[in-house]
Amino acid sequence: MAELEYAYGSEPYAVRLVGSSPTVRTMKKQPNLRIILLGGLGEVGRNMMLLEWQGKILICDMGFRMPEEDMPGIDYIVPNISYLKDKKKNILGVVFTHGHYDHIGAVPYLMEKIWHPGLEIYASPLTRGIILKRQGDFPNQPKLDIAEVRDGSKVKLGPFRVEFFRQNHNIPDNLGLFIETPIGNILHTSDFKFDPAPVNDLPTNFQKLKSFGRRKILLLMSDSTGAEENNHSLSEKTIEKNLEEIFKYSSGRIIAATFASLINRIQQIITLSEKYGRKVCVEGYSMKTNVEISKILGYLKIKKGTLVKAKELANYPDGKVTVLCTGAQGEGSAILMKIASREHPFIRLRKGDSVILSSSVIPGNERTVQMLKDDILRHGVKVFHYKMMDIHAGGHAQQDELREMIKIMRPKFFLPIHGQYSMLAAHTELAREMGLSERNALIAENGQIINLNPKKISIEKQKVPSNYVMVDGLGIGDVGDVVLRDRQMLAKDGMFVIVTVIDKTTGKVKGSPDIISRGFVYLRESKELLRETRKKVIEIVNRTTGSGGAVNWSYVKDEIRNKIGQFFYTKTQRRPMILPVVIEV
Amino acid sequence: MAELEYAYGSEPYAVRLVGSSPTVRTMKKQPNLRIILLGGLGEVGRNMMLLEWQGKILICDMGFRMPEEDMPGIDYIVPNISYLKDKKKNILGVVFTHGHYDHIGAVPYLMEKIWHPGLEIYASPLTRGIILKRQGDFPNQPKLDIAEVRDGSKVKLGPFRVEFFRQNHNIPDNLGLFIETPIGNILHTSDFKFDPAPVNDLPTNFQKLKSFGRRKILLLMSDSTGAEENNHSLSEKTIEKNLEEIFKYSSGRIIAATFASLINRIQQIITLSEKYGRKVCVEGYSMKTNVEISKILGYLKIKKGTLVKAKELANYPDGKVTVLCTGAQGEGSAILMKIASREHPFIRLRKGDSVILSSSVIPGNERTVQMLKDDILRHGVKVFHYKMMDIHAGGHAQQDELREMIKIMRPKFFLPIHGQYSMLAAHTELAREMGLSERNALIAENGQIINLNPKKISIEKQKVPSNYVMVDGLGIGDVGDVVLRDRQMLAKDGMFVIVTVIDKTTGKVKGSPDIISRGFVYLRESKELLRETRKKVIEIVNRTTGSGGAVNWSYVKDEIRNKIGQFFYTKTQRRPMILPVVIEV
Repeated sequence: MAELEYAYGSEPYAVRLVGSSPTVRTMKKQPNLRIILLGGLGEVGRNMMLLEWQGKILICDMGFRMPEEDMPGIDYIVPNISYLKDKKKNILGVVFTHGHYDHIGAVPYLMEKIWHPGLEIYASPLTRGIILKRQGDFPNQPKLDIAEVRDGSKVKLGPFRVEFFRQNHNIPDNLGLFIETPIGNILHTSDFKFDPAPVNDLPTNFQKLKSFGRRKILLLMSDSTGAEENNHSLSEKTIEKNLEEIFKYSSGRIIAATFASLINRIQQIITLSEKYGRKVCVEGYSMKTNVEISKILGYLKIKKGTLVKAKELANYPDGKVTVLCTGAQGEGSAILMKIASREHPFIRLRKGDSVILSSSVIPGNERTVQMLKDDILRHGVKVFHYKMMDIHAGGHAQQDELREMIKIMRPKFFLPIHGQYSMLAAHTELAREMGLSERNALIAENGQIINLNPKKISIEKQKVPSNYVMVDGLGIGDVGDVVLRDRQMLAKDGMFVIVTVIDKTTGKVKGSPDIISRGFVYLRESKELLRETRKKVIEIVNRTTGSGGAVNWSYVKDEIRNKIGQFFYTKTQRRPMILPVVIEV
Repeated sequence: MAELEYAYGSEPYAVRLVGSSPTVRTMKKQPNLRIILLGGLGEVGRNMMLLEWQGKILICDMGFRMPEEDMPGIDYIVPNISYLKDKKKNILGVVFTHGHYDHIGAVPYLMEKIWHPGLEIYASPLTRGIILKRQGDFPNQPKLDIAEVRDGSKVKLGPFRVEFFRQNHNIPDNLGLFIETPIGNILHTSDFKFDPAPVNDLPTNFQKLKSFGRRKILLLMSDSTGAEENNHSLSEKTIEKNLEEIFKYSSGRIIAATFASLINRIQQIITLSEKYGRKVCVEGYSMKTNVEISKILGYLKIKKGTLVKAKELANYPDGKVTVLCTGAQGEGSAILMKIASREHPFIRLRKGDSVILSSSVIPGNERTVQMLKDDILRHGVKVFHYKMMDIHAGGHAQQDELREMIKIMRPKFFLPIHGQYSMLAAHTELAREMGLSERNALIAENGQIINLNPKKISIEKQKVPSNYVMVDGLGIGDVGDVVLRDRQMLAKDGMFVIVTVIDKTTGKVKGSPDIISRGFVYLRESKELLRETRKKVIEIVNRTTGSGGAVNWSYVKDEIRNKIGQFFYTKTQRRPMILPVVIEV
């Protein structure tokens, strides 16, 4: 493993920066820059960062993440911004690095809560286009005024001066941030990789990066997503070469599925289709939208006549057709699944077709991708996926590139961002191997307040709220732990409502209790169980209400819940949620 | 890719076997052997196969599989044996290949349904021990009389003559089956790999395999689990070497987690612990049980004094302790999770500890394993897992070994067994590359009736039932599609019960409707929504019942369900299950 020792600048940093002698230094308390990550640490997605200097706040990115498996019904998880409550006017602006949803997806849910007339918003043209298009999908959202920035743009936001610079990723127009602050310079890499042969983009400008390095980096915040992967990320050139092999030897239709946001992969498929004389049919709402925006803004190069509609496909021989669609993750609602399950109005799989799954599998989706692959293979179709050959590259720097970034920036302090805890830990390990001390290379967690001054990086004991804010339909944050726990319980063993009508005068049950149950047992085949249950309920009620005097209804309900719960567990070893209703008439 | 052409025997097989001339052959209809796989095709687990000759049935293995992610509350899925109903007396016997739950796990759920006094059951000593121990965990299950078989044992079951032979896997005492049938010989590989240096076992006896090959194999049924993996499976020797590196350099405790059924890995950890002077504490019910059985039967070699109890660990320095436990898959109830979340009564993680996750990640478990890894790392502990170094080998032959098996057996027909459809397809592809024709190397699915005679292998149009039989608590098969769909719906958006009491004489609502809701919205913060809902319900009921005459209660309920459903969707974009109860008094 290559190790590198380096000195941060040529003289002690703090001394040079504050211009004070060592004696003075020890007497003055250094003012701190506060850095708070509301998401993206210990998780993949939900990236949002605050830089705060004497009350003035700069925001970087507002992303969402997908829910965990034990969060049924939840659409997304967005950052918790309660720390910003009552601080609206102190928010100077928001800068966006790139157009992926884990960096911009929370905008329609959160922006109106922090927006004020003085708020400045900056994004690259493509990022801006994607944010505005999505904002349009939310009818009640305000129109946003977003200023365009490009490689080399510089903007001043209160005490912060932000310089944007081009970084390779797998979506065009991705910008890293060089931020001058009153206590020193911060470099935020954005998601990045060093690709010697990127698609629709120039290779990394190492001269530019080195020039930042020479301007003294107090803190490097670097993308950790690939920190557990050895060596160097695959170049898009390799991917293109492998994809071309498939195009070269396929005589039937090619159905290529990838992420809608993977603009560069979409470009590759289109370019290869044009080269091999294939028409391209783009299917899936999100992919169509992204292709449209990218085309208009010039980030996708498509020849006139290449794109055709699905219903026109029948006019072309199989060998002249490419279908470009969503669904490489086995998403139930995506186009590829509809095609595989014969639900698509125009496209059916047939022998001779080749399906390309050009994406990695997001952890948690392995089973659904396997099922999808199996379903496609059952049609006698060839399937190409990333485990068979390199037809997908991630967008993230791997260990060699991460080392290179540290080497170029020679930061005094290091903070790994973006990724699961294991990725942050691996990235910190790299930084330490390269000479950063344990004290200077921290692992922080969401909501922690990181205090930074020229001499020290430290974490406050106090945290700001960073727990999950869940989006479910129109509700943002209204589904909390209670509702979620109930959903999990309902899913596991179902529920059982017992409605008992009680005669006010006698205290006895009138008629037979009504039972409504779902997800517990198949009622039609459980008549004996229901009969016994009704009998037990009547016994319980009559016993508890029968002694005369005022009836404690909550005691009656508790008795039903407990006794019937025990009865069910003995009979079935299941614990449905038991909900007694008692009506006095 | 190495390809091999081979001839099946030296003369046309069918001719030789039935001893008839070509002219006679065409005149006689060949009797068929029926082969039915009730599970294990297109899935991993639930292995169970039937061989049927003129009504007489031989069963091979009775395994279960784990539920899919969209099957909340389900414990296991077992084979559907309704085909065997009313055929009990025709079942000659059951032979088991090895002691993994995907081959024996369904015994306590299904055996009593097929058991009769004449049923013969055969298993190797360890497999037998595991089956009997598990049977003991089910108090109402009959004691089973299982005869022991070993490498070389031969048993005759009606028209079938089964010869058992040793095969390497990752549990000892695994037996392949050479089955002589009236129409020719079948070779069933069991799960297998060719390991030149196995643990507690001899390397594959290739001479023996070749001798089977020379006896003419009509049909080879071979394990497909590793058919998508290139090259040769890792040898346990390599694993042991890598594990030893960790033992050599760890000065703190070693906490090694693996599958409870991975007896060979357990042996390796124990052997290394003994070599490096560490005491071993085995934690977790299933692992303790398996260690106990294997030790008694001589399949685990443990020195006296090696094993210690968890509460005694404090008596030993960290460098002298190994904890061997379950939980490498992030299972919530397993020991490693308890240790990581500080719930274990005696063991807390601390800096200096090394945690070894010696297992691959079962598809679908990636997220939970990631969370577990993160939690362990947060304690400042080192984590070693299979992606970092080869500290786990699967138990299944990869492509080189599968080719070798086909080459040795030179079967006339080939049927891939055990695995997802993509694995079966890859395995068939291998067989075809090696010269088997498309007609002779089929891919079958669960429940299909495969007809085999010396001339032909074919699949009947008719299928036997093979759909999922789900085990949930004490219920076997009572949770079907309806209950499962309800659970999924309840999980997604919760449920909403509206109890309305109606005055029989006026047809109007009495009082205010009762509402019980779980998993939909947080009720305490939704008072306005509930108020509006109650109002709407009263309006609906009074309108629909108010016109005089006989009231159609199911119409009233439908109206409530539809109107309130629409109202909720407009307000929340959620669709809780709405359950109206109407009580007339």
